[in-house]
Amino acid sequence: MAVLGQDGVEGCCPALLTAPLDEDQAETLAKVFKALGDPVRLRLLSMIASRAGGEVCVCDLTPAFEVSQPTISHHLKLLKQAGLIDSERRGTWVYYRLLPQMTDRLAAILTRPAGQVPAETAPAAGAAS
Amino acid sequence: MAVLGQDGVEGCCPALLTAPLDEDQAETLAKVFKALGDPVRLRLLSMIASRAGGEVCVCDLTPAFEVSQPTISHHLKLLKQAGLIDSERRGTWVYYRLLPQMTDRLAAILTRPAGQVPAETAPAAGAAS
Repeated sequence: MAVLGQDGVEGCCPALLTAPLDEDQAETLAKVFKALGDPVRLRLLSMIASRAGGEVCVCDLTPAFEVSQPTISHHLKLLKQAGLIDSERRGTWVYYRLLPQMTDRLAAILTRPAGQVPAETAPAAGAAS
Repeated sequence: MAVLGQDGVEGCCPALLTAPLDEDQAETLAKVFKALGDPVRLRLLSMIASRAGGEVCVCDLTPAFEVSQPTISHHLKLLKQAGLIDSERRGTWVYYRLLPQMTDRLAAILTRPAGQVPAETAPAAGAAS
């Protein structure tokens, strides 16, 4: 799978807001956003990312949901395939942690270049002078 | 439709990385990410967002794609329903522009709190002492 942001660690990431994405960039990026496009996956990611110790046992994730353990495991697999989380099996349980590089890249992709003025702050036409 | 980030303009947005999302927040946010989870929609958004004049005629968008005009219109409708773009009809054509508030919100949601140290920088267990 192509990895986002391989063209430089600091000045990473395809530009979403400043230049048209090419087809390959769009395919790669769409897979990650698609992984985020589900409420159960978003809640799982949020629970993993916000865990103080940095990782969460799958046994602590499933009780929060009304869906089955295999369904949760499937959602976790999709988040992992998207590069958003990683996992490690230790004994009976699998432990999950955020891969912050990917959320950092998405945040960078969605951030406007400094100094770009939103069009909606322009004075309204016909305003009293 | 619920709007993201209504709980304050500056300290906006549900926290994705610092606290577990609740079900309503996850439902609302998943719709926006789902809208981004398609390569044609991502390319359309990118073309609209990166346009120097701030808006793009639909007549300038469709030639870049090998899909039909109705398909493009459907994708644009989904981006608009997600709050990512707005449109205005003038004469024959519809013109599209980015709603940067939504991409700003997504960027904020995906940004780690300042000072958060990634777990993977911790020393490996069993390293030589």
